[in-house]
Amino acid sequence: MAPQIRRLRIAVSGLGRMGARHANHFLHRTPRAELVAAFTPDAREQAWAKENLEPWGVKIYDDFEKMLQHEGLEAVCVATVTTVHAEHTMKAIEAGKHVLCEKPLSTDLAVCQKVLATSLAHPHVKVMCGFSRRFDSSYLTAYAQTLSGQIGRPTILRSQTCDKHDPSGFFVAYAEFSGGIFVDCNIHDIDLSLWFFSAGTDALPKVKSVMAVGVTAIEPDLAKHGDVDNGIGVVEFHSGQIAYFYSSRMNAPGQHDMTEIIGTKGKLTVNANPTTGLLESHLPTGIHRDIPQTYYDRFEFAFVEEARQFTDAVLDDKVVPVDMESSVEAVRIGVALQESLRSGKKLFFDEEGNQVEDGAKAKL
Amino acid sequence: MAPQIRRLRIAVSGLGRMGARHANHFLHRTPRAELVAAFTPDAREQAWAKENLEPWGVKIYDDFEKMLQHEGLEAVCVATVTTVHAEHTMKAIEAGKHVLCEKPLSTDLAVCQKVLATSLAHPHVKVMCGFSRRFDSSYLTAYAQTLSGQIGRPTILRSQTCDKHDPSGFFVAYAEFSGGIFVDCNIHDIDLSLWFFSAGTDALPKVKSVMAVGVTAIEPDLAKHGDVDNGIGVVEFHSGQIAYFYSSRMNAPGQHDMTEIIGTKGKLTVNANPTTGLLESHLPTGIHRDIPQTYYDRFEFAFVEEARQFTDAVLDDKVVPVDMESSVEAVRIGVALQESLRSGKKLFFDEEGNQVEDGAKAKL
Amino acid sequence: MAPQIRRLRIAVSGLGRMGARHANHFLHRTPRAELVAAFTPDAREQAWAKENLEPWGVKIYDDFEKMLQHEGLEAVCVATVTTVHAEHTMKAIEAGKHVLCEKPLSTDLAVCQKVLATSLAHPHVKVMCGFSRRFDSSYLTAYAQTLSGQIGRPTILRSQTCDKHDPSGFFVAYAEFSGGIFVDCNIHDIDLSLWFFSAGTDALPKVKSVMAVGVTAIEPDLAKHGDVDNGIGVVEFHSGQIAYFYSSRMNAPGQHDMTEIIGTKGKLTVNANPTTGLLESHLPTGIHRDIPQTYYDRFEFAFVEEARQFTDAVLDDKVVPVDMESSVEAVRIGVALQESLRSGKKLFFDEEGNQVEDGAKAKL
Amino acid sequence: MAPQIRRLRIAVSGLGRMGARHANHFLHRTPRAELVAAFTPDAREQAWAKENLEPWGVKIYDDFEKMLQHEGLEAVCVATVTTVHAEHTMKAIEAGKHVLCEKPLSTDLAVCQKVLATSLAHPHVKVMCGFSRRFDSSYLTAYAQTLSGQIGRPTILRSQTCDKHDPSGFFVAYAEFSGGIFVDCNIHDIDLSLWFFSAGTDALPKVKSVMAVGVTAIEPDLAKHGDVDNGIGVVEFHSGQIAYFYSSRMNAPGQHDMTEIIGTKGKLTVNANPTTGLLESHLPTGIHRDIPQTYYDRFEFAFVEEARQFTDAVLDDKVVPVDMESSVEAVRIGVALQESLRSGKKLFFDEEGNQVEDGAKAKL
Repeated sequence: MAPQIRRLRIAVSGLGRMGARHANHFLHRTPRAELVAAFTPDAREQAWAKENLEPWGVKIYDDFEKMLQHEGLEAVCVATVTTVHAEHTMKAIEAGKHVLCEKPLSTDLAVCQKVLATSLAHPHVKVMCGFSRRFDSSYLTAYAQTLSGQIGRPTILRSQTCDKHDPSGFFVAYAEFSGGIFVDCNIHDIDLSLWFFSAGTDALPKVKSVMAVGVTAIEPDLAKHGDVDNGIGVVEFHSGQIAYFYSSRMNAPGQHDMTEIIGTKGKLTVNANPTTGLLESHLPTGIHRDIPQTYYDRFEFAFVEEARQFTDAVLDDKVVPVDMESSVEAVRIGVALQESLRSGKKLFFDEEGNQVEDGAKAKL
Repeated sequence: MAPQIRRLRIAVSGLGRMGARHANHFLHRTPRAELVAAFTPDAREQAWAKENLEPWGVKIYDDFEKMLQHEGLEAVCVATVTTVHAEHTMKAIEAGKHVLCEKPLSTDLAVCQKVLATSLAHPHVKVMCGFSRRFDSSYLTAYAQTLSGQIGRPTILRSQTCDKHDPSGFFVAYAEFSGGIFVDCNIHDIDLSLWFFSAGTDALPKVKSVMAVGVTAIEPDLAKHGDVDNGIGVVEFHSGQIAYFYSSRMNAPGQHDMTEIIGTKGKLTVNANPTTGLLESHLPTGIHRDIPQTYYDRFEFAFVEEARQFTDAVLDDKVVPVDMESSVEAVRIGVALQESLRSGKKLFFDEEGNQVEDGAKAKL
Repeated sequence: MAPQIRRLRIAVSGLGRMGARHANHFLHRTPRAELVAAFTPDAREQAWAKENLEPWGVKIYDDFEKMLQHEGLEAVCVATVTTVHAEHTMKAIEAGKHVLCEKPLSTDLAVCQKVLATSLAHPHVKVMCGFSRRFDSSYLTAYAQTLSGQIGRPTILRSQTCDKHDPSGFFVAYAEFSGGIFVDCNIHDIDLSLWFFSAGTDALPKVKSVMAVGVTAIEPDLAKHGDVDNGIGVVEFHSGQIAYFYSSRMNAPGQHDMTEIIGTKGKLTVNANPTTGLLESHLPTGIHRDIPQTYYDRFEFAFVEEARQFTDAVLDDKVVPVDMESSVEAVRIGVALQESLRSGKKLFFDEEGNQVEDGAKAKL
Repeated sequence: MAPQIRRLRIAVSGLGRMGARHANHFLHRTPRAELVAAFTPDAREQAWAKENLEPWGVKIYDDFEKMLQHEGLEAVCVATVTTVHAEHTMKAIEAGKHVLCEKPLSTDLAVCQKVLATSLAHPHVKVMCGFSRRFDSSYLTAYAQTLSGQIGRPTILRSQTCDKHDPSGFFVAYAEFSGGIFVDCNIHDIDLSLWFFSAGTDALPKVKSVMAVGVTAIEPDLAKHGDVDNGIGVVEFHSGQIAYFYSSRMNAPGQHDMTEIIGTKGKLTVNANPTTGLLESHLPTGIHRDIPQTYYDRFEFAFVEEARQFTDAVLDDKVVPVDMESSVEAVRIGVALQESLRSGKKLFFDEEGNQVEDGAKAKL
């Protein structure tokens, strides 16, 4: 019998590391979605697509605009290199396609704001930036507990993104385009601070000051791009809340992303005690456990859940779970942290979001 | 475009709690499988199927034999009540369908052996009993580490299956058919002992003695069925290996299934430190974490992986990952433990598997 | 100024590994006690005592009887080889000295009962067997929680004593005198079962059956002494409670003694998640932690607390925290388990403690 | 027999909360020390001393100068209120007494430097500031692993001091004298950064910048004293190392002090997974564990070890394990952080330790 279920006809733009994963998620792990098309300009990615997507009935394009015209196409997942995120997102919106865009929208705040404006101009098109941690079950439970009031008012948030050292130096070359460690890595932690600090309120918290420092402990060449391999950032909000972040490119055993949400009555920790699974090895050298090697090992199921929730939001005409305003604000904070890192200065902002020269106006 | 991928056309028999889950796994989470049919004689389950399976193109049957004749059907997943497992499995085999059967094949050893004989008589049909823990990532890693020799020779195995107390008393009524706590719960732990103790060898270890004791701590009515709510069993093998088991129906916080594989050079623990996810709550009353509430919460992904591996084995004509001999042997041990529980006696066996009256022949 | 505090004048008999530690505990870590004398017949131990005890004013004896006559002596801590425990304890009691005796009183049940009789004949003399785990802070808290009713009725107790493998083979030679693994190692676990199962009641639980099995996985020579390097024992009580035990001589990373007290409403675990301290190392090979290497590393502070509580009981004329009846009962159970191990048989007992031939009388 | 052991004759100054503990440590838990005297001007503390110290032969003084003249006195442990630390330390040094002084020497940097000068002027007198964490076994093992090179070069250090909320508001009143949260709480974390960052080198790292922010989440009255109940501080060193700190007065379950030492090849965590002992409770509401309630619950044994190592250093004429220069530097950094908190400004320093106006000179 032919299925009678209505499924979201979606395409993926970009079939690199994450693009291929998104394609698989929509193809095999999102029952209400149907991957109908994919775009990549890259020959190697096209070969992969011919082998892995085409046999499942997915049409492969080497022209993004043409793909947008694929018959019946309803939505696009943008997973290209970061520099193309905004362009594809805006084109898709203008073509009336719903968009799930990989984070960040852009490393350039003005471009982000342009995407936001495009989105606001097309209110019937759903647009969501893929902040995957918001779909991780541990974070979701932490958020529910925060909303329940169990920890009182969320006041301090500590969050880190620590990658296993990649000796290939990929991230050094990538630093030219990544926007820097605060925009590339800590953007997730920044997003979490906006999410948790606005829990139960109507508004995003407003930045009062940012300060960042960092070092190049293992990859001195990062300095060429004004970047570091270990960064620490602190963000004060006018709401009396503070977030502080750490990111590192040299975590020895693997990926260790963790978060503490500290409220006036309690604290929630996500991944304070990292582990891959439930196995421990008791050996002559002690007790050992492994941790995930990559962010995808850690967040695979969050990405699948993200695809599912985006699909549901479109099919059922619900609000998407990550709002565009906060995704733009996350970039604004990431960019400010990177600027603070580069200048060595603490930066101050008034409640309207304007940078103010004199910190005195923003002091304690 | 129409998919050109060859997918395994499978049906599910029985749409109760686990049957419905298996149906969903094959329908939505096993890319190489296509759920084409489902059978249930139950009106409520049929209603569920009409709503949840039929719209996806799955044909619903109220006659198992007719379902076996579904055009193009290649395989059947038997997930009925335990008392029907063997009958459906044998009929499917005889109809030339590959079978994934929920554990146990039967609570009656003779019936299990009949299923095994049927399977052996149809060597081209793949038959596998669904011992889900063998597909859990932590157990799989533990098994790989055992094979690698890291812990030396696996010598002692401790394993437990502890359910959260179900105050509805469902398991008391169910005890009439379950075969008892050692056949119903510890069958998984028994299977793990056969799996790990034969790691790297060609043969299953042979039982030398079994001894079981138990109490009815919270449900005295279990005694009517010769059953208990807390059972402890010890199994000696002629190979100089010992497995000991615990099962309980009264674990307060939820499901806690754990295993230790103890070798001459090291020990592996699976789930010594149970938790639902990566969240901990630091509250005035201390630090708290939750654990899975049911075995499905704990093993959901193992069931999905089981469906995937069974599908691959059939499509790629590989040996199924759980062999029938060990599945029958697990029942034999479970039944013997239950008999030891009921008689209060330790039971002895010679190397040919015959029960021997005089324990002296089997002593240290 | 001269101290005016009344302190218990105590002597230590035996200055081997544990004797020397007991001497140090009374000398330096038990403020209300004063170590005044020590006995050892061993030249090497005497040399150690001359260097480490004598300068602190401790008189060293090579004759136990003479030490008993040391002026003002009030109490004796017996820490000789096990074979002398009972003799010294009885002589000290008869000389009117309070006694803290290392476990076990004897590996011979009849001898234990003689010590008990001697103790009962001298009601003004405090006698206590040193079951150190009862003084460990985690066990003490577990006991308090059990008494509070938090876990309902304690019903199942699992407990293990696992030593790091000692490649010197010391424990093989020692097996000739140790009474076997259940008397030497699991005696602590047996004691814990008696302690927790009688929590909040007036009486010790009565043994209904014992069954033990074991293997010699790494030290086949143990078989000469009817002993094993891995043993599993199960003890049923007439009270509807069951304890099961594991002991091993081959735990790779160190000492891992752990206990679960399972009640009708909850479970307490002591040392399910072993660690030496609060340090974890995140290295390229994963996350690592160490565990204690010996039972003394694990229970050092429990031994100190034992000395303190014994001293307080004597000085303040309170009941000693470990009663002699349970210490004798622990030996009785340990000896029965060892016998079950050797004979391969399950042993049955009636409510009066008599062994009964026919298990049927004791069956479920 | 009278002891012939040479013991350090020490006095304690101040018998408040920590003073009484220090007195007990030297009296009962430091075998090579002899507590001979104690000073307190406070009637309640004197009463306590008469009951708890005098019977052990300790002479009680209400005049610090007279106590310094106690016959045979060799050393003083200064544990008064912070405002008197420096005065008593200097007087004791000038009287030729070795000094163990509670941290901090003073909340005033100039005063600290005066104490340092006094110490340097009396090279035969041992002076040590009591940074207790350096004597905690987990930190000691972490330090040994750092020295061994296991984690490469220590580059980032994160450390926190989080107290259980004290609803009495004691710490609000105390804020007038405490020097603020960075001098009172994070001084320990600052000390750890100096210790670990100089591991294996000859010199303390030199501060390049400090930045601190904070909020009064639960005690707005702290603002009167320029203080907060949650503070975050970041310290850059000219050596390319960064330490960042968090302190809180509102940790719900108890005391949670933790540290991460992050090197180029690995990371060490101390107390990432806090717990009181080895007990966990599995209850219907989940799995629970307690954590220490106060810093003394957490560090009791570190204080005892501190007393022991100080005593050994004096008796055996060894270098004391905490050098005065780093103790003064810790205050300097704490004071600078507090100033940054109050002014809202990031502060910069050149390599000679002079504050520089223009951050540009210190930028990345």
